[in-house]
Amino acid sequence: MIDLNADLAEGFGRWELTDDEALLEVVTSANVACGFHAGDPSTMRRVCELAAERGVAIGAQVSYRDLAGFGRRTMDVPARELADEITYQIGALEVFARAAGSRVSYVKPHGALYNRCVHDAEQAAAVVAGVLAAGAELPVLGLPGSRLHELAAGAGLPVVAEAFADRAYTDEGTLVPRREADAVVHDPDTVVARALDMAHGRGVVSRDGRRVPVGARSLCVHGDTPGAARLAARVRRELAESGITVRSFA
Amino acid sequence: MIDLNADLAEGFGRWELTDDEALLEVVTSANVACGFHAGDPSTMRRVCELAAERGVAIGAQVSYRDLAGFGRRTMDVPARELADEITYQIGALEVFARAAGSRVSYVKPHGALYNRCVHDAEQAAAVVAGVLAAGAELPVLGLPGSRLHELAAGAGLPVVAEAFADRAYTDEGTLVPRREADAVVHDPDTVVARALDMAHGRGVVSRDGRRVPVGARSLCVHGDTPGAARLAARVRRELAESGITVRSFA
Amino acid sequence: MIDLNADLAEGFGRWELTDDEALLEVVTSANVACGFHAGDPSTMRRVCELAAERGVAIGAQVSYRDLAGFGRRTMDVPARELADEITYQIGALEVFARAAGSRVSYVKPHGALYNRCVHDAEQAAAVVAGVLAAGAELPVLGLPGSRLHELAAGAGLPVVAEAFADRAYTDEGTLVPRREADAVVHDPDTVVARALDMAHGRGVVSRDGRRVPVGARSLCVHGDTPGAARLAARVRRELAESGITVRSFA
Amino acid sequence: MIDLNADLAEGFGRWELTDDEALLEVVTSANVACGFHAGDPSTMRRVCELAAERGVAIGAQVSYRDLAGFGRRTMDVPARELADEITYQIGALEVFARAAGSRVSYVKPHGALYNRCVHDAEQAAAVVAGVLAAGAELPVLGLPGSRLHELAAGAGLPVVAEAFADRAYTDEGTLVPRREADAVVHDPDTVVARALDMAHGRGVVSRDGRRVPVGARSLCVHGDTPGAARLAARVRRELAESGITVRSFA
Repeated sequence: MIDLNADLAEGFGRWELTDDEALLEVVTSANVACGFHAGDPSTMRRVCELAAERGVAIGAQVSYRDLAGFGRRTMDVPARELADEITYQIGALEVFARAAGSRVSYVKPHGALYNRCVHDAEQAAAVVAGVLAAGAELPVLGLPGSRLHELAAGAGLPVVAEAFADRAYTDEGTLVPRREADAVVHDPDTVVARALDMAHGRGVVSRDGRRVPVGARSLCVHGDTPGAARLAARVRRELAESGITVRSFA
Repeated sequence: MIDLNADLAEGFGRWELTDDEALLEVVTSANVACGFHAGDPSTMRRVCELAAERGVAIGAQVSYRDLAGFGRRTMDVPARELADEITYQIGALEVFARAAGSRVSYVKPHGALYNRCVHDAEQAAAVVAGVLAAGAELPVLGLPGSRLHELAAGAGLPVVAEAFADRAYTDEGTLVPRREADAVVHDPDTVVARALDMAHGRGVVSRDGRRVPVGARSLCVHGDTPGAARLAARVRRELAESGITVRSFA
Repeated sequence: MIDLNADLAEGFGRWELTDDEALLEVVTSANVACGFHAGDPSTMRRVCELAAERGVAIGAQVSYRDLAGFGRRTMDVPARELADEITYQIGALEVFARAAGSRVSYVKPHGALYNRCVHDAEQAAAVVAGVLAAGAELPVLGLPGSRLHELAAGAGLPVVAEAFADRAYTDEGTLVPRREADAVVHDPDTVVARALDMAHGRGVVSRDGRRVPVGARSLCVHGDTPGAARLAARVRRELAESGITVRSFA
Repeated sequence: MIDLNADLAEGFGRWELTDDEALLEVVTSANVACGFHAGDPSTMRRVCELAAERGVAIGAQVSYRDLAGFGRRTMDVPARELADEITYQIGALEVFARAAGSRVSYVKPHGALYNRCVHDAEQAAAVVAGVLAAGAELPVLGLPGSRLHELAAGAGLPVVAEAFADRAYTDEGTLVPRREADAVVHDPDTVVARALDMAHGRGVVSRDGRRVPVGARSLCVHGDTPGAARLAARVRRELAESGITVRSFA
């Protein structure tokens, strides 16, 4: 059993980015942008409505407040402020999820905040505090072994491990940083094969050729490139054909 | 019985405006800015915590998205977008109100949106739609006789009439527009006397000297000028001394 | 002789909109977004560099401050503030134009501000004041007969009339508002034919079938739809083949 | 001879912070916020007009794009973007300085960007690149010995050293970080005495009691606290009485 998650609602006003409708036909968990790096209220509402209709779980894709940088620039936000910004975003999404007959059922940090919370205990703790303040003991979707997961689990929040079929891994089972040349896997056949390996518990072949274990209850598929939705659909189809049940963890 | 409401949480980041602590000692309803014209998440949280401690009702002071103009510039926001922006703001405040052990118990539009919704049926309907989507049948605090009140009542929402002890009224019982010279009453004794008249159902003396009726379940006191909190405290004290119970409508 | 202008640099951060490179191969005047409705600094710099290389005139596409609404929502900005916002945007673009070896050589209001300044004397006067403060007696590109043109000319600024080959006109020679069903001409052959008519001084056939005069020193081509750059290139080619010199007015 | 500089124009829209009028009676250099951490266009214009009237030099107080954090949160902005953001801000201020009959005559980074550029070569180089693109070989006001000064000097830009009479120094002559308890000197008499020492080339007494040299062509006085303008005026008066000429470096 595996979950497929994707970042959605990442347009803003006149600007569109993710093919929300197509991806909502494929994924089982929608990481909905909440207005801080992307995601205007109308887009959030529409994505919540579509997700609710299709039984896709709604997650809060929380971010630094950085529209100009799309949440991809690390920021030294004081912990108390960061926690409050996380809570604000969850609340803003929750009202649309409720209006659509669903609810926010998990949280996933976006972009630079995601990366920072792998190692930075202070910001990871702030994210956990922000989630706790939202009151619903929401699961935290993220990188297994991250400080965020460690602190979330310590605070009693469920943690859900995700893996990336289109990202290179090191021998230690961590992601090759994006700034390195071979960080992203572009070949669709390889992406599909890796997704199957991950879902079947066979781990992943590292950049250096070793097979390493990768715990994953959810696979992240990307939605902001041409062809992304089609590749995601193929991943889902082949997962199903190989006997894997594709289902939300929520 | 009368309610006292004031606009609070109207700082943003480094900038402060309203003396939130002092006003929360006086008012029975706090119109909390929700981030669109003012009100960062940390300020919203703090004001909700203080309001909850003191038993002050928390209201969503919803606005156009206009930090640079403090929500004082009328905007032709399409109805569907405006409704979604209202819903977003209510949701963002609700999560802090809940975390503080309270809840959002009413909605009051701010600034240019407030004024526009007196006459503009399309925007007033959008505000009503935005409130309805938030799901809790929240009372709408506003000007008696406004299109907003008419449409809110038509949609089944409770409406709460407010009056302004420091604003001049016309013979018709409407507010003298701010751009006119004598729109604001500055003398504290006069403000107090008018508040007493309003609370005791004696109406108000219009700009042209006639006594006109003013229905008011809530009096709005202003909080963004020096001495505002002190004047508000005096209004409250004299109301109480005259036998009026000062209590939230919520 | 005719000028072709298009709106460019209308992305923001991660979001792209206009195909700037392709359009800069076609147009003779680039209306560059200045950061208020679109246009981040890096995009502004790149478009200025490309425009300077290709001899395309650089114009400041000034707007209301409204990223969320893409400058398409009319705002009641007080005149003095609006003038200052216009000046600010011109200055921000000028520094990139200069760095690229060019200069800002005209101003064109964007979106809702453009439409408002057709009739609203106060906002039109504010735009003129903002342009004058920038110091260079910049030409104002806009609708012939608009209040903006009238007031700009009265203040000694050059005015440049533009026409729209893909917009329907009334018998009075004004644009059919976008909210009406037949406001936009979609058929490419018709757009090209109308551009040729306009450039050759033959006016345009109105929505009701009358031929009406349309003064135009510049034709506006749109750049934010698929195929826009290709259609613009065809317009330019057929204009040239018909004996028209396509050249900037600046 | 010494210069006095202060951060000005640090309000935004409805919010005020610095007492611009009072400080412009005292300082010889005005670090004007340019809209990224504070400083709306109308405030920028007014401060430029007052500065020009009084012969106060106008400097661009450039910042990260962070209104919510007042530019006090370090951000990992990619170098090329950061350079463009610096250029944009200088251009936006220059047009108001010119309109007032003056010009931008120096640049000083604000807040977190100032601190980051003390040590971070990449961001310091980006600031230098942004200043160079603005075209006027503007002096860079900053901390002596900083990477910013080193790289600016290497690029041919004049550098101007500043010191802080109200900040504690280490034995190495660097600032005690703000997060440490004794980082700020609050006693007005001590602040004045230290300003006199700095201006007369007698250095400063470090936190540990040693007298250390502090090169300073400019003293920074703060303007965002009550009494700040009065203290700055006293510093200026006592400097003059001690035989120091207070004059801009520009």
